[in-house]
Amino acid sequence: MTTHAKATADLRLACIQFQPAIGRLDDNLKAMERLIRQAAGLGASVAVLPELADSGYVFDSQDELAALAAPIPDGRSAMLLCSLANELNLHIVSGLAECDSDQFFNAAMLCGPSGPIGTYRKLHLWNREKLYFQPGNLGLPVFDTAIGRIGVAICYDGWFPETYRQLALKGAELVCVPTNWVPMPAQGHHPEPMANILHKAAAHSNGIYIACADRVGTERGQPFVGRSLIVGPTGWPIAGPASEAGEEILIATINLGDVAKARALSERNDAIGDRRSDVYG
Amino acid sequence: MTTHAKATADLRLACIQFQPAIGRLDDNLKAMERLIRQAAGLGASVAVLPELADSGYVFDSQDELAALAAPIPDGRSAMLLCSLANELNLHIVSGLAECDSDQFFNAAMLCGPSGPIGTYRKLHLWNREKLYFQPGNLGLPVFDTAIGRIGVAICYDGWFPETYRQLALKGAELVCVPTNWVPMPAQGHHPEPMANILHKAAAHSNGIYIACADRVGTERGQPFVGRSLIVGPTGWPIAGPASEAGEEILIATINLGDVAKARALSERNDAIGDRRSDVYG
Repeated sequence: MTTHAKATADLRLACIQFQPAIGRLDDNLKAMERLIRQAAGLGASVAVLPELADSGYVFDSQDELAALAAPIPDGRSAMLLCSLANELNLHIVSGLAECDSDQFFNAAMLCGPSGPIGTYRKLHLWNREKLYFQPGNLGLPVFDTAIGRIGVAICYDGWFPETYRQLALKGAELVCVPTNWVPMPAQGHHPEPMANILHKAAAHSNGIYIACADRVGTERGQPFVGRSLIVGPTGWPIAGPASEAGEEILIATINLGDVAKARALSERNDAIGDRRSDVYG
Repeated sequence: MTTHAKATADLRLACIQFQPAIGRLDDNLKAMERLIRQAAGLGASVAVLPELADSGYVFDSQDELAALAAPIPDGRSAMLLCSLANELNLHIVSGLAECDSDQFFNAAMLCGPSGPIGTYRKLHLWNREKLYFQPGNLGLPVFDTAIGRIGVAICYDGWFPETYRQLALKGAELVCVPTNWVPMPAQGHHPEPMANILHKAAAHSNGIYIACADRVGTERGQPFVGRSLIVGPTGWPIAGPASEAGEEILIATINLGDVAKARALSERNDAIGDRRSDVYG
């Protein structure tokens, strides 16, 4: 509540919503590079891209995934992102199809101007992902970067309030969320996707920034909902929701120093400090 | 997913939104009785009333609270509710100001046609409540009743995702929430109160029914937001939100058998079963 170890500067954060195509690695990497350059041109110092941005999402077989997945940070997609982060003086978080010897992960890499910073592997696998990927085995890391403490979650991870709570308790100020949101079974005609509601609630309850970069389009019959969103630590959107179907870059100016302020819900309350860990751990 | 121990019947659930007045116990009990009778007349078999429905909310002093609070289930308010539950064949959950020897709790009683079932004491105290009440010391009980497994939370408890998660893990199918929601500091001109967003997210993430009965009016300068809400286990409202300022009874037909169905988010996913307790306990 008094002075912070790090000065808290305003940052421009970009969430890149686009349509990767299953199996078309070259095209996807080209689109990612084009949009990352565009985000940098808009002044972004952090860019978030969707889940499995390099490979596409709806795999037909393990072999198809195996042909697309690559190591992090030494594979082709990861190396391209690191090189762009260096050239453009950016931090980048992107979903990538990762292979680690004979195992496959629905992963995300965080890299910065000086190179790779860390990898997150999706903990909670959605539907047919369970056929092709191993569940994440790296826990919920928080990366202490030059611009602040950054956590990563991927799509269905956000359905579990524990994800954001654990990241907040470990000091995350910003959680970057590469995602491929699909319609929920009970979405019906409700105009706001449940995914947006979950992330407003999570940002408010934890007093953190959450930046969700979704994909769009329909792939092998599976539609995605778009509606990328950047939420401030009070729980209200500060950019987006983006459109349902269009390629789009959301930009928000954030200040990670606002996290402590947002948690002070009244003169006697703190959204994290008031936890009853004696009751629920 | 197969047969349940209990047959799951449709139930009519009522959330009673009204305006208690600080210190006017007689008037408040009269209003509670009138509205409970009205809810029963509408076919309700469960009725939820606001936080501190008998006493009002904005105490000026400890002495003022001491003059209003009473034991549960042997005090005047609790005995009236038990008698109505018996006469009308209802389950009732109501917020009450409780005294237990020299300690005061922001509590809620659950009673049914056969008498008192249990007490919950608010775990997370909001702002000036910290001056007058002890924090709850009964944990997060789930009551196994003739109509289903019922948990209770009060107002600011709902800001902590752990509250609903713990209740769901302990088997709650319906959480009744007596509340006195106040505007959040960053509410601004957003039309939907953050409280509504939090409870849609909690119901969806846990696949439970949540029934919030709020108060209305302004008391000693403190406004309340109304907007009582009954949310189904898919996370979407099934009654309400109620108005901001009016006395109102929300009615929804619920079936606690829907909880298991709502959690099956895809053919390979379960909102509770997919938890990574190996990572976050």
